[in-house]
Amino acid sequence: MRFLINISYDGTDFHGYQKQKGKRSVEEELEIALTRINNGKLVKVCASGRTDKGVHALSQFLHADIDVKITPNKLKRAMNTFLPDDIHVLSTKIVSNDFNARYNVLEKTYEYFIETGEYNPIQRNYIYQYNYDLDVEAMKEAIGVFVGEHDFRAFVTENKTKENCVREITSAFVASANGLIKIVFTGNGFMRYQVRNMVGTLLRIGQNKLTIDELVKILESKDRTKACKTAPAEGLYLVSVKYKDNI
Amino acid sequence: MRFLINISYDGTDFHGYQKQKGKRSVEEELEIALTRINNGKLVKVCASGRTDKGVHALSQFLHADIDVKITPNKLKRAMNTFLPDDIHVLSTKIVSNDFNARYNVLEKTYEYFIETGEYNPIQRNYIYQYNYDLDVEAMKEAIGVFVGEHDFRAFVTENKTKENCVREITSAFVASANGLIKIVFTGNGFMRYQVRNMVGTLLRIGQNKLTIDELVKILESKDRTKACKTAPAEGLYLVSVKYKDNI
Repeated sequence: MRFLINISYDGTDFHGYQKQKGKRSVEEELEIALTRINNGKLVKVCASGRTDKGVHALSQFLHADIDVKITPNKLKRAMNTFLPDDIHVLSTKIVSNDFNARYNVLEKTYEYFIETGEYNPIQRNYIYQYNYDLDVEAMKEAIGVFVGEHDFRAFVTENKTKENCVREITSAFVASANGLIKIVFTGNGFMRYQVRNMVGTLLRIGQNKLTIDELVKILESKDRTKACKTAPAEGLYLVSVKYKDNI
Repeated sequence: MRFLINISYDGTDFHGYQKQKGKRSVEEELEIALTRINNGKLVKVCASGRTDKGVHALSQFLHADIDVKITPNKLKRAMNTFLPDDIHVLSTKIVSNDFNARYNVLEKTYEYFIETGEYNPIQRNYIYQYNYDLDVEAMKEAIGVFVGEHDFRAFVTENKTKENCVREITSAFVASANGLIKIVFTGNGFMRYQVRNMVGTLLRIGQNKLTIDELVKILESKDRTKACKTAPAEGLYLVSVKYKDNI
């Protein structure tokens, strides 16, 4: 039986979502718990995509095939019993065997949080502690540049010379209250470091060290060396993954 | 020169505020940083009071005597350079040599946070993950029992047979929004575990397993064995310490 599983996790103590030898990952913890539930028969999971070291998820999805008979509710409860306390199963449901949590994604939303006020030790792993003023109005205006279908090659960290880097960002905005800035990106797909590189570039705009015209030129250049520093991982959250209505 | 120092800290990775041999404490980290600033001459600190293992502070105060000449602003910067990232100096000021951060306290405020909705791994060290419904209206009504001057012996964990356990709670209330409950206590002093024991008792009220009449009887009994389970540390924050206006 194939299950679609909705989870949240605190990325702080993981070396990222993806399994890596000798390092703690969300994927490995999920497989350990599911294999235990599956009476020791190895279970592999397939997520909507990876998140990097230190990045959090309020809503991540994955599918897994379980051989033992179990209801979605009992699967949720069993997983939450076996998983460590920095991963939580929000819900589970049965899907058809041809459903794929990675390939069937329609849209994803990421949020990035920046504190411009006083350093807050309690939020240091959950909100990027920038702790200086930013020109939020300039950032609000500039973020519109990313909306639409673009070749985002300039915002990908690795050298992707052959891969298709065209993605569509359907919505992007900046909101702020009491010195806390929230940056939201929704799109049909995001490449590795893309959101954090876009945020890093918006930070330069907020520092008035980069103009909107220059941002447009960076996007058009398709040259990674032109974009700005990658923003830190701890401010980033995967907040939503959308699939077709009928699942 | 005596300095009054206002700090915040994340209690998660400390064995409490107070120094303990072989265990990481806020007090020891402060003394290490201040001694370094004081050219290696030992500096002792005196805080408004202790907080227990896992308890956070948004605003804690302490005084310390520094021999080297340094301005309050430079002291703040130097401390924030030397302190670990889970302690932060918010401000410093020079006070008279007879000022005492512990004995001159007029009033303290503690806040306690409880999540009644779905378990959230990201908040597990910062909000008590109760994750079941509570009768918030009953809790709102019951908390009034604590307001005023009472002998809080029944809410102190250790056997305080001789100590004076009379304290005044000047204000106490329960607020809630979106499944998150905040409990606020302000008073002239709180004993060890007192807030968490009062919260534990309010939790029983919220579960409808204890009536307001029974709560009154527990308070009047002055018997610790009558009160309820101590609420977990991670939901508790020291949020404010008040001194006389003229410092």
